[in-house]
Amino acid sequence: MATHKLLLLPGDGIGPEVMGEVQRLIDWINAQGIAKFETEQGLVGGSAYDAHKVSISEGDMDKAKAADAIIFGAVGGPKWDSVPYEVRPEAGLLRLRKDLGLFANLRPAVCYPALAEASSLKREAVEGLDIMIVRELTGGVYFGEPKTITDLGNGQKRAIDTQVYDTYEIERIGRVAFDLARKRRNKVTSMEKRNVMKSGVLWNEVMTQVHAREYKDVTLEHQLADSGGMMLVKAPKQFDVIVTDNLFGDMLSDIAAMLTGSLGMLPSASLGEVDAKTRKRRSLFEPVHGSAPDIAGKGLANPIAMISSFGMALRYSFDMGDLADKVDAAIAAVLASGLRTADIKSEGTTAASTTQMGEAILKEL
Amino acid sequence: MATHKLLLLPGDGIGPEVMGEVQRLIDWINAQGIAKFETEQGLVGGSAYDAHKVSISEGDMDKAKAADAIIFGAVGGPKWDSVPYEVRPEAGLLRLRKDLGLFANLRPAVCYPALAEASSLKREAVEGLDIMIVRELTGGVYFGEPKTITDLGNGQKRAIDTQVYDTYEIERIGRVAFDLARKRRNKVTSMEKRNVMKSGVLWNEVMTQVHAREYKDVTLEHQLADSGGMMLVKAPKQFDVIVTDNLFGDMLSDIAAMLTGSLGMLPSASLGEVDAKTRKRRSLFEPVHGSAPDIAGKGLANPIAMISSFGMALRYSFDMGDLADKVDAAIAAVLASGLRTADIKSEGTTAASTTQMGEAILKEL
Ligand SMILES: CC(C)[C@H](C(=O)O)[C@@H](O)C(=O)O
Ligand SMILES: CC(C)[C@H](C(=O)O)[C@@H](O)C(=O)O
Repeated sequence: MATHKLLLLPGDGIGPEVMGEVQRLIDWINAQGIAKFETEQGLVGGSAYDAHKVSISEGDMDKAKAADAIIFGAVGGPKWDSVPYEVRPEAGLLRLRKDLGLFANLRPAVCYPALAEASSLKREAVEGLDIMIVRELTGGVYFGEPKTITDLGNGQKRAIDTQVYDTYEIERIGRVAFDLARKRRNKVTSMEKRNVMKSGVLWNEVMTQVHAREYKDVTLEHQLADSGGMMLVKAPKQFDVIVTDNLFGDMLSDIAAMLTGSLGMLPSASLGEVDAKTRKRRSLFEPVHGSAPDIAGKGLANPIAMISSFGMALRYSFDMGDLADKVDAAIAAVLASGLRTADIKSEGTTAASTTQMGEAILKEL
Repeated sequence: MATHKLLLLPGDGIGPEVMGEVQRLIDWINAQGIAKFETEQGLVGGSAYDAHKVSISEGDMDKAKAADAIIFGAVGGPKWDSVPYEVRPEAGLLRLRKDLGLFANLRPAVCYPALAEASSLKREAVEGLDIMIVRELTGGVYFGEPKTITDLGNGQKRAIDTQVYDTYEIERIGRVAFDLARKRRNKVTSMEKRNVMKSGVLWNEVMTQVHAREYKDVTLEHQLADSGGMMLVKAPKQFDVIVTDNLFGDMLSDIAAMLTGSLGMLPSASLGEVDAKTRKRRSLFEPVHGSAPDIAGKGLANPIAMISSFGMALRYSFDMGDLADKVDAAIAAVLASGLRTADIKSEGTTAASTTQMGEAILKEL
């Protein structure tokens, strides 16, 4: 049996707690002989800053490059609000995405029936919701140069950020979206602001070309990102796969996540290009939620998004779709049984701890 | 009695129809001797393109500069989807904003009690909602240079957009937000992406300074635009005034508008700086909704957003707050009486036409 190398980067806040439950799941998989995972740990974000005054060390970057998949917790917190910009917690995550070429960010927004009530939207608007947001992750305004603040004198400063997209970057994220749609409900909605941004014009043009050349069997729709955001709030179930750029994807995927009422439940996968020789791709898996410093260390955090992110690793990096399905089913079963962490419990019920939730899911398996 | 000069720019789609109801209101105000408005008409968007192959003519730009206020309908539609980028319908609107220096875009998101049911959100989440989004309108990625698409050869193109903000641009929009908050619930939430964008870092820094220097009596909170968007969907009533940049403002104000369930009801005002000598400011008023080409010419459009935008003109440009209050009250009364245009009617009731709605509001007055 092949050994799979995992790098665990728990990060800050509730990161280490929720990662603990993934570790428990990995141990169980190894013990059962289902697969062989070898894990290493590293530091990222505030915890890397505290140890080494960087947001991720060169040693951990090397480990990340050598790993078959990275399992990432969360970064940030008020403790590091005033560290220098270059070493702020988020910089570690952004460097991992960029240096590992993780251009495709998959963010499913699924409404668990047991939790539809937790949404601020009406039940009928979100029940059964199942959309996939495909966000470009290594381009756009996140990484374009110049990205500067210049002192103009007279007490005036000028800040500049640059949104850059090349044809190939749009093509490859488009293909990821169309391929996913083929396994789902066969529809892709591309969102940009072509009426204002040149990158939106190119985005629209390239998506249209890729579609016409390679994916005529999939339905492609275009929507302006602002009205797309509106439609997401008004009638989210009209969407299947949404493909959009880095910044719009950041906003739209967070909004989609919130619609489901299950922010603590949603995973994400960030994938690189498939290597022509090895057929492997670099990958990182992280929950959509943040580091939640206010509840860190209290055993209150919901580990489902983290466990479910590991499920995405099984599916997308290790071709273990069956086991991934079992993990998803175990999560659904535990929720159906009524077990709830504090973030999703309804009034009057007692909340399960992080560990209780993790153990219950394992028991289901 | 002073004469106020208005330029009416109905634009495309339902623009002319809803503008007709404003014209009716203006005629009534003149006839009653309440004020003296002199109106001129101009072309913008697709209708300007059809007439002159531009998105707005130089003659109409001159009229716009000479007017005391501009009342704007809506622009765009599939008919002009393939006109050259420089003369696309939106370009006319963007030029008006930029050349007239209309840097402050005020977008109230109010949930009319009679319409709370129309929201996709639960009634308790939106009932009584009253927030004001203050969007920077002449800077950021909308106007920054370079803004280009370059052919790189090999079938590759590169698109670039540039987000630029100077200190003074952030200061002046901040002041607009803080001044408004003082007349409301005294709270401003500033949204940016300082963890990724240098313009977000400067935005945050300048807002903090303006607050500390001039507005200590107002509460200032900072939120990342992505989690701000989430909060807007989860619990919008926590906000009073939200201040944000041009692009985030575009997205967030549309989402806020959709929350209310009343997109066809929401007005906006775009204001320039107050002239030191004349104490006047340039201004443009437009509904938040678009040109709705699918229902254009059928007498189905809801004129309330347009009439309410004229109400904002009375308030912000002509110091006629009392009359503006009366217009608002007339709209609320007509809604309470059960009259509905097609976009807001519930099943089984018959819809009022654009004209019927306009006349009913006038009758209330
Ligand atoms: C932490 C931050 C840099 C990040 C982003 O903006 O991409 C986060 O919001 C996300 O969506 O993963
Ligand atoms: C029509 C378009 C250029 C405009 C914008 O993006 O600003 C519109 O969406 C708005 O919000 O006023």
